[in-house]
Amino acid sequence: MRAVILAIGSELVGPDRLDTNSLALTAELRALGVDLAWKACLPDDESAIAEALRRALADAELVLVCGGLGPTADDVTREGVAAALGRTLERDPAIEAALAERFARFGYRMPEINRKQAMVIEGAVVLPNRRGTAPGLRVDLGERTVFLFPGVPAELEGLVAANLLPWLRERTGGDEAIETRGLRVACVPESEVETRIEPAYREFDREDITVLASPADVRVRVCARGDAATRRARLEAMLERLGQLLGQAVYTFEDAETLEEVVGGLLKRQARSVATSESCTGGLVAERLTRVPGSSEYFRGGLVVYANAAKVSLAGVSPATLAERGAVSLEVAGELAEGALARFESDFGLGITGIAGPAGETPGKPVGTVCFALAARSGATERIQLRLPGDRARVREGSSQVALDMLRRSLLGFPLHWNSSK
Amino acid sequence: MRAVILAIGSELVGPDRLDTNSLALTAELRALGVDLAWKACLPDDESAIAEALRRALADAELVLVCGGLGPTADDVTREGVAAALGRTLERDPAIEAALAERFARFGYRMPEINRKQAMVIEGAVVLPNRRGTAPGLRVDLGERTVFLFPGVPAELEGLVAANLLPWLRERTGGDEAIETRGLRVACVPESEVETRIEPAYREFDREDITVLASPADVRVRVCARGDAATRRARLEAMLERLGQLLGQAVYTFEDAETLEEVVGGLLKRQARSVATSESCTGGLVAERLTRVPGSSEYFRGGLVVYANAAKVSLAGVSPATLAERGAVSLEVAGELAEGALARFESDFGLGITGIAGPAGETPGKPVGTVCFALAARSGATERIQLRLPGDRARVREGSSQVALDMLRRSLLGFPLHWNSSK
Repeated sequence: MRAVILAIGSELVGPDRLDTNSLALTAELRALGVDLAWKACLPDDESAIAEALRRALADAELVLVCGGLGPTADDVTREGVAAALGRTLERDPAIEAALAERFARFGYRMPEINRKQAMVIEGAVVLPNRRGTAPGLRVDLGERTVFLFPGVPAELEGLVAANLLPWLRERTGGDEAIETRGLRVACVPESEVETRIEPAYREFDREDITVLASPADVRVRVCARGDAATRRARLEAMLERLGQLLGQAVYTFEDAETLEEVVGGLLKRQARSVATSESCTGGLVAERLTRVPGSSEYFRGGLVVYANAAKVSLAGVSPATLAERGAVSLEVAGELAEGALARFESDFGLGITGIAGPAGETPGKPVGTVCFALAARSGATERIQLRLPGDRARVREGSSQVALDMLRRSLLGFPLHWNSSK
Repeated sequence: MRAVILAIGSELVGPDRLDTNSLALTAELRALGVDLAWKACLPDDESAIAEALRRALADAELVLVCGGLGPTADDVTREGVAAALGRTLERDPAIEAALAERFARFGYRMPEINRKQAMVIEGAVVLPNRRGTAPGLRVDLGERTVFLFPGVPAELEGLVAANLLPWLRERTGGDEAIETRGLRVACVPESEVETRIEPAYREFDREDITVLASPADVRVRVCARGDAATRRARLEAMLERLGQLLGQAVYTFEDAETLEEVVGGLLKRQARSVATSESCTGGLVAERLTRVPGSSEYFRGGLVVYANAAKVSLAGVSPATLAERGAVSLEVAGELAEGALARFESDFGLGITGIAGPAGETPGKPVGTVCFALAARSGATERIQLRLPGDRARVREGSSQVALDMLRRSLLGFPLHWNSSK
């Protein structure tokens, strides 16, 4: 079964409000094996609603129309749906009585405008709303079905739980759900991920594997249909295969887990600690590490040494290195990392120095040039220089990702970067 | 002129991701008098894209298609649009050369799959993308126009600014627009803002004033219609009145300006510098200050002193104060601020220590308790203790906002907090 969601409300086509209702609704639909064909936001406009409903019914068996059932003049969803279906609106005395009773319970007389909410599309089933004044409606059209729900999230949720889900379960048997899982990869370009997982596309259904990229972070999501055992087996098989293809670049097989959580977990299990010395990232690596509750167990502290004087006085970078190599150099990154380790008496020290832009470019060091170093209490300091794409925010975000991934790889005994050999 | 936005991506019809691109796009369209007829989210499916485009072109003169221009096999937006318009796709050697050059610049060889991004819809105008690999496209269809943009927010934004807006301005003349401006307020609760601006609701049109709240930051937006002179006069009058009502709490009359930019501007104009010493915010204040290009002029550096040992050895907090008052105390905040000032030889030092949660509560100091101090080279150290609402992320975000606003208020000679007297 396929569904379309129409979210009605002029505020939803303005610059300030998003339709968030559809997310929970989509999750409920998926859990019962219903795919969302598309979803749209429409203004409170009768003919726009009518036209969109006609299109939705051409594409899907189930159409969920949310919003525009209120008492005010701009609420015209009932009218739009009735027009599309060629049906009339009829006053329902039972709803009117229930509305009047509801107002009386709260000590009010029913305002005249609320009578509008007693209007029902000819032939529709009325779905009582315990959380508000607007009842839901269900219109059966043979092979197709339209549900009308209020847009207020609590009311929508109540009506979905009490009406849509039982109705759907009866039809789908509840056994044909769609389940999603995912893995995440740090610092490997999207196209490289894509190239590596190519074989999995052939071995499984291509549509069941989705690649989602954000700066220096790529998610690969897999989905499976069928009963619980079938789904689990298929998801496990896909994740295992993708894990083989992507190897050490995968930092988690939990779609919702962040890189700082993974690194934190590794430090905790290995009872090791880290400190940071940041220039171009300005504290972002420390800030990410401390987003994780309990990070005080393994994060000792950080230096943000933006000025060269501070690099020397606080992080212990030698003035000679600064003068000879420049602030953005592998040597300075190394001394930053070693300085952090020494000052905070931690097991690891991370040093980051680079040119985040827009200014600061020097010959041979364009914007995006960033040097990273990882010092360890035992063993040599390892260093990497990269050129990261994007604007200031993206270079900083990408740099924090590289630094955290270096630490993860080191904790696991891997080479420090996806295209470096140890 | 009316527009339709089509947001393409299978993740956008799933339960996890919202199409947020359309909000900024809608704001830009409105500013040029273009109304959004509707918007929809579609999966990466060629025939669904083609059908939606046909419907969009039936309803609007301008169609903006965002997403699905990437190099991977599931990116089929070009194909879908070409199918709807009955046009072919052609390889563009100039784009291919630019792509290869871009990869070479970052030290990679172009993966074979990226060649796909050099495919252009027959007759389309190519819009160069400086921030990524996928160029935008514009297809002129007489009275109607289709733009194709990548879905990556930074790339979309760049292409919109460089191509869509100039193109639109030429067509609309920029008259009869809906213009929006706004002011921002830090650290005052939304309900307090609402109460204070109550008189403005009566003096102007209530619908023209919108209050938008995020943690410790409230935006008040005003909008006006009509020709340029009318709009400007009305916007100025509304902002002036709101400014009177909100007073020193307003940190900017530019809707897009951030608190760190305002603080940076003040420091720069007064030729003064700042350094930070952070515990519970974990580097967030330093990170925010350094988001601003050119911040090296006034940001000396920061300490993230998460462990008590580091508070003593690096920030110079006295072990006696820690033992007697506890790490979360006005006294420790004061010594952190003074330590930052001394270590970095700056004009101001900010100290922040608190309980971000979820753990760490002590008797009399519940989660959300945060102590702030501002030390100045000349004058006494000022200190504030607050209880901030929300979870770990919100307490940290709110704390960074309070710290930056304290500095702003001090630079302007105001009391340090909206409900404190100096």
